[in-house]
Amino acid sequence: MTTAAQIVLASRPQGKPTLDNFRHETASLPAIKDGEFLVRVVWLSLDPYMRGRMDDAKSYAKPVGIGDVMEGGTVAEVMESKNDKFPVGKIVAGSFGWTSHAISNGEGVRIVDPKVAPISTAQGVLGMPGITAWVGLNDIGRARDGETIVVSAATGAVGAMVGQLAKAKNMRVIGVAGGPEKCDFAVKELGYDVCLDHHAHDAKSLTKAIADAAPDGVDVYFESVGGKTLEAVLVNMNTHGRIAVCGMISWYSGQGLADAQPLPAVWRNILTRRLLVEGFIIFDHFNKFPDFMEQVGPMVGDGRISFKEDVADGLENAPQAFLDMLQGGNFGKQMVRVGADPA
Amino acid sequence: MTTAAQIVLASRPQGKPTLDNFRHETASLPAIKDGEFLVRVVWLSLDPYMRGRMDDAKSYAKPVGIGDVMEGGTVAEVMESKNDKFPVGKIVAGSFGWTSHAISNGEGVRIVDPKVAPISTAQGVLGMPGITAWVGLNDIGRARDGETIVVSAATGAVGAMVGQLAKAKNMRVIGVAGGPEKCDFAVKELGYDVCLDHHAHDAKSLTKAIADAAPDGVDVYFESVGGKTLEAVLVNMNTHGRIAVCGMISWYSGQGLADAQPLPAVWRNILTRRLLVEGFIIFDHFNKFPDFMEQVGPMVGDGRISFKEDVADGLENAPQAFLDMLQGGNFGKQMVRVGADPA
Repeated sequence: MTTAAQIVLASRPQGKPTLDNFRHETASLPAIKDGEFLVRVVWLSLDPYMRGRMDDAKSYAKPVGIGDVMEGGTVAEVMESKNDKFPVGKIVAGSFGWTSHAISNGEGVRIVDPKVAPISTAQGVLGMPGITAWVGLNDIGRARDGETIVVSAATGAVGAMVGQLAKAKNMRVIGVAGGPEKCDFAVKELGYDVCLDHHAHDAKSLTKAIADAAPDGVDVYFESVGGKTLEAVLVNMNTHGRIAVCGMISWYSGQGLADAQPLPAVWRNILTRRLLVEGFIIFDHFNKFPDFMEQVGPMVGDGRISFKEDVADGLENAPQAFLDMLQGGNFGKQMVRVGADPA
Repeated sequence: MTTAAQIVLASRPQGKPTLDNFRHETASLPAIKDGEFLVRVVWLSLDPYMRGRMDDAKSYAKPVGIGDVMEGGTVAEVMESKNDKFPVGKIVAGSFGWTSHAISNGEGVRIVDPKVAPISTAQGVLGMPGITAWVGLNDIGRARDGETIVVSAATGAVGAMVGQLAKAKNMRVIGVAGGPEKCDFAVKELGYDVCLDHHAHDAKSLTKAIADAAPDGVDVYFESVGGKTLEAVLVNMNTHGRIAVCGMISWYSGQGLADAQPLPAVWRNILTRRLLVEGFIIFDHFNKFPDFMEQVGPMVGDGRISFKEDVADGLENAPQAFLDMLQGGNFGKQMVRVGADPA
């Protein structure tokens, strides 16, 4: 029998989540059956969508139940196997959750080739955040060479990828991020043309700063934050602009609702500028994963796409790292090291 | 010299427009030059977009200047001509404005065939409202056979056409209109499956009524009113639903802004249900006019598409008819009879 360290949802958050919403547990895993395999988790990815799963609200995915292991994407090593497709020693990516060990039948699990890039990227630039950026930029944002894009959360897991993919398309790329350190990184490491620090602006001055940074207006907005950034970008959108709605992190816990711009002003811009606003959830687009890997895998392998990770050490520190990330405290893709690198 | 009776913009409205914003004038038209022709206006069309032109705000079209003739689509008869394409006696459709007579060089003017349908339809079901409905339903709303659509302003010039075109596509068609008389007309004359009277509902009960009328949810929303109808439809939208944003008449004069639903709630639906929201302005789509006429012209000619007009008699009554229309007082396409029918 294998003992797994796990983190479960102890209670649903009222507004901002706190450490009290999580509980550490241990579970005894049964012996594996035919078709199954046992993994030990090496990397756990923390992502903003997890906040939504903590609520009981109707959404695109079922909420995590009280007492259930928190959901999460992981990179893991196969330790025992009765499944020929996933032999012992293979590195796999799957949604094993906030746990040190798990048993799987292989559904939704894919093999990771450790020669392409560090295996943690299978939950980063070459995983869900990467394909989210790629689909959002191309299929939802309909981005074209030479256009201007604004990327919110510009140095986050998805945003950093959007910015780099957009530069590779020869676009003018304007980032919005929190703090001078992130903005500096966006310009120097990720190749953004400009990065604006939203901590230094209210909605009005951010509107002006975006107008200055986008002399030809904004054609595509990669939107994952809501709040004042959305307000500021909206009025700078060009006619026939596109907004890819990937998230609304600043509103996830009910913050900032009171002073949010009312709907009519936004709706007026959608109408008069003939904007196309489209929400998307990457789970609808996983059939594009092979195309994504074929196109973007080599770009990561040869360094054309760089990536930055913010690593919390130990599963027990996942809740605090998650809370920090929701407040913008991470710098780069938030990962948790759950176990040692494979030999 | 020809004397033209005209209505000009006297002042910009503060909120709701009033009769004081308009002024009656007479103008002396000069003799026509080579390439020009003189028309007398028979029909003037009144449309919600004109409200936007009265403001000085940045929009998709230039505002009407103070002292300028109000803009408007018209059907007219050619009285004198030095332009071979527009000979005397021809019926034409063009934007001659709120005037009894005008001179044109033919730009933006098209010949109307009086044998196809009554000539007033050239500014109705076979004019801008008609093509707006057709483009909004098919190109923007991406409507498919068997889906469910909600049409706001269900008996208005555009809405009545959307509803009938949707029924012809074998969709489930739910109208929202103001008052039992309009709703009765929508079901009995236009073929709507259900029509809901928004006067009889607040946002909450309208939400429930739409849910009851759309057991399979709403795939397409043809949106031209904003306000509580938008709020009520949004939460009934199916995943991957489409919202064609054609107007927001309930908010045009700043009414209802205080209790409008805040943006975050709408944005959450766009994200979690992966909605596609697209604003459109029919001026971008006039290149589709020949296709529209080819497909829809015969449907009007043989009675498959019916139409209803609300006629104000005399150019001098256009301002009051326009104000009434903005309050939903018209029943059918609002037209003004400016001159006698051609012989």
